[in-house]
Amino acid sequence: MTKINLPETGQPRIVIVGGGFAGLALARQLAGKPFQVVLIDRNNYHQFQPLFYQVAMAGLEPSSIVFPFRKLFQDYSNVYIRVTEVASIETENRRLITPLGIVNYDVLVIATGAETNFFGNAKLAQLAIPMKSVSEALYLRNAILDDYEKALTCPDVEERQGYLDIVIVGGGPTGVEVAGSLAEMKQYILPKDYPELNVSEIDIHLIQGSGELLTGMSNAASQKALAFLKELGVHVKLNTIVVDFDGEKVSMNDGTTLRARKVIWAAGVTGAPLPGLPETARGPAGRIRVDRFHKVDGLDEVYAIGDIAYMEEEAYPKGHPQLAQAAMQQAANLASNLLRQKAGKPLRTFKYRNLGSMATIGRHRAVVDLPRFQFQGAFAWLIWLLVHLFQILGVKNKVFVFFNWVWNYLTYDQSLRLIIRPRAPSHKNN
Amino acid sequence: MTKINLPETGQPRIVIVGGGFAGLALARQLAGKPFQVVLIDRNNYHQFQPLFYQVAMAGLEPSSIVFPFRKLFQDYSNVYIRVTEVASIETENRRLITPLGIVNYDVLVIATGAETNFFGNAKLAQLAIPMKSVSEALYLRNAILDDYEKALTCPDVEERQGYLDIVIVGGGPTGVEVAGSLAEMKQYILPKDYPELNVSEIDIHLIQGSGELLTGMSNAASQKALAFLKELGVHVKLNTIVVDFDGEKVSMNDGTTLRARKVIWAAGVTGAPLPGLPETARGPAGRIRVDRFHKVDGLDEVYAIGDIAYMEEEAYPKGHPQLAQAAMQQAANLASNLLRQKAGKPLRTFKYRNLGSMATIGRHRAVVDLPRFQFQGAFAWLIWLLVHLFQILGVKNKVFVFFNWVWNYLTYDQSLRLIIRPRAPSHKNN
Repeated sequence: MTKINLPETGQPRIVIVGGGFAGLALARQLAGKPFQVVLIDRNNYHQFQPLFYQVAMAGLEPSSIVFPFRKLFQDYSNVYIRVTEVASIETENRRLITPLGIVNYDVLVIATGAETNFFGNAKLAQLAIPMKSVSEALYLRNAILDDYEKALTCPDVEERQGYLDIVIVGGGPTGVEVAGSLAEMKQYILPKDYPELNVSEIDIHLIQGSGELLTGMSNAASQKALAFLKELGVHVKLNTIVVDFDGEKVSMNDGTTLRARKVIWAAGVTGAPLPGLPETARGPAGRIRVDRFHKVDGLDEVYAIGDIAYMEEEAYPKGHPQLAQAAMQQAANLASNLLRQKAGKPLRTFKYRNLGSMATIGRHRAVVDLPRFQFQGAFAWLIWLLVHLFQILGVKNKVFVFFNWVWNYLTYDQSLRLIIRPRAPSHKNN
Repeated sequence: MTKINLPETGQPRIVIVGGGFAGLALARQLAGKPFQVVLIDRNNYHQFQPLFYQVAMAGLEPSSIVFPFRKLFQDYSNVYIRVTEVASIETENRRLITPLGIVNYDVLVIATGAETNFFGNAKLAQLAIPMKSVSEALYLRNAILDDYEKALTCPDVEERQGYLDIVIVGGGPTGVEVAGSLAEMKQYILPKDYPELNVSEIDIHLIQGSGELLTGMSNAASQKALAFLKELGVHVKLNTIVVDFDGEKVSMNDGTTLRARKVIWAAGVTGAPLPGLPETARGPAGRIRVDRFHKVDGLDEVYAIGDIAYMEEEAYPKGHPQLAQAAMQQAANLASNLLRQKAGKPLRTFKYRNLGSMATIGRHRAVVDLPRFQFQGAFAWLIWLLVHLFQILGVKNKVFVFFNWVWNYLTYDQSLRLIIRPRAPSHKNN
């Protein structure tokens, strides 16, 4: 196998695997610095995960929440993008194996994030729709619209229910946000687009395994999220686990079933594996065990940051929450340490600073937990909106795009309810 | 087989097959009128074909040039959308057969348009990329970007050429517009996004069968289009026919070959067939022969408009040009005749009014033929831009979207260079 085409610049080569919040933040902080930075991702874009559900609901275009790496790094000649997957790591040779060839590294940073956890259920893995990529969100959008079209011409009530009803599994932020926006779609958009459908036939079910929603958040947030969802007409089932799905029918552990062709799976994540790491590096839930300097246990010059990293801190004996803010804080600390190391300065221990967490339920209701107090409702939603806008702006930094985004987000009527799939030749055209 | 689910409103049912320029214009003119209008299309959106190439070049989002039917007809309860294909027509029973069921009609309007003509070459039909749908344009966008990524890590010059070079077959408006915008992409965008690529290695070839480009236009327009393309560095080959393509190599009838993995096919169209029409209805080039009232020869209450219709007029003994303006004029005349017929008034004979034609070559050069005079260059391009903007506005009618569109169109830096495909579950997520 040949080496991947990369110039030898004489600078230490830092290879970052994964361009999510952690990998992107690290690459940005090392851009223009005396390193050769190689960012490897299987897509040519960064995905702004908190808003995937908006793409699925046809509320935003994919291009509003994904950002091409090449454009982000246009002005930095020391950053090299390679769109490929990593097959394995050979730590003894300090190199990665990819379909495009071998990549040598001086420093390796693993930022592969987390992937959907189906808890070993192969059928669910095959048929349920996860929400971990914009491609999946687009698939869900197409499936929802396709099924409404089919429901229109389906005379059988039972069968029609399968087309119309949607089951969301998992009551974390993603599940709650999807349920809330589906409920609003049902209320505000569908009656206009599908006057022939009886909107009251559409049921949105949210199934949560534990006794409350948003388990990582405060009690007040959990209670209020439940109340908001009920206001919006979502059927919430707590203490219930989905055990089976055959593409038509969802079965739960309490023996009940629901008829639905679309099951959205937001029930949990597990570390995205990367073959070639030693046993010592293996942490809980598929994560990679790192020390307080992000260094992978038992390896030299190999680091892990973001959702994949498992670091025990005094205040977080079970590791940090798998959130964008943890990923970005870790990236910032690692970037600074890499520069300090180069300058011969002492390294800094990572310390996570919890800035709070939030979730939105539809467009005018949110729950916000700050370290010292909590609040819910319309003002919380405004805060949610502002925080996400500024995050997007942080990536994109374009005022016009910003206003465009606000407009798209605030107006329901997005004209995005399009079922479009790229089509290869050798099909009949249309 | 059961009937498709459609209410009996007591009004005569006009079924329109195809929501292109002709079908959409007709449906809009009959919206709110005393008919039940059923619009059948295989997509849930109207496609603004003149700008497909902009989607392919990552200059515009699909959502900027496609418009969901349901949104367009939200305010008209007499218009029913059915997203399906027509398998066949049974004129003796006045009904259509579709996968969703049988559709009875009182009046049938065929507006199925034209599809890509590969002139019987099965290999080209399989491997070349047509530009007759936004799905194909998206496919081409993904293919171009994928191939640039591959070229980056391809050390072999010959093989790299295959990834970089693009062959466009057909020198009509689509071919010329694609070639022009690819040339601009090469000049302005690629050096910024792919500083590692040697842009001069990229060759864009336009192959035209006849001795001039834009054969339907004036001699001045043809000459100037050729000059503009040469200015932009496009290799134009006239009097040459592509005879073979194996996915890697394009062969021409002069014995020469070109290495390219992407062949864009814009060499001609043929009527999109619809089984069940009698022999008498068959016109040249797969089109349907109609009288001066758009009525299909030999059939009652069956009409054809748009690219599929073949009507001989004194001034157009070989039928009208297959252009949006002909389609929309025919739709307007048929709509008015259907209303006149209902009111017992005499029908009006169709008469095509040529408003001129135009093509753009890149962003600052165009050629315009008006009935009485021709002009080319920057002012022509401004006219081209305004005409298309107003056409889009005619469909969409939203001021903000309009400015958004202008902005997207005028700024090169669109952040749309994304390789996104909807992804079904049962894939590893990313």
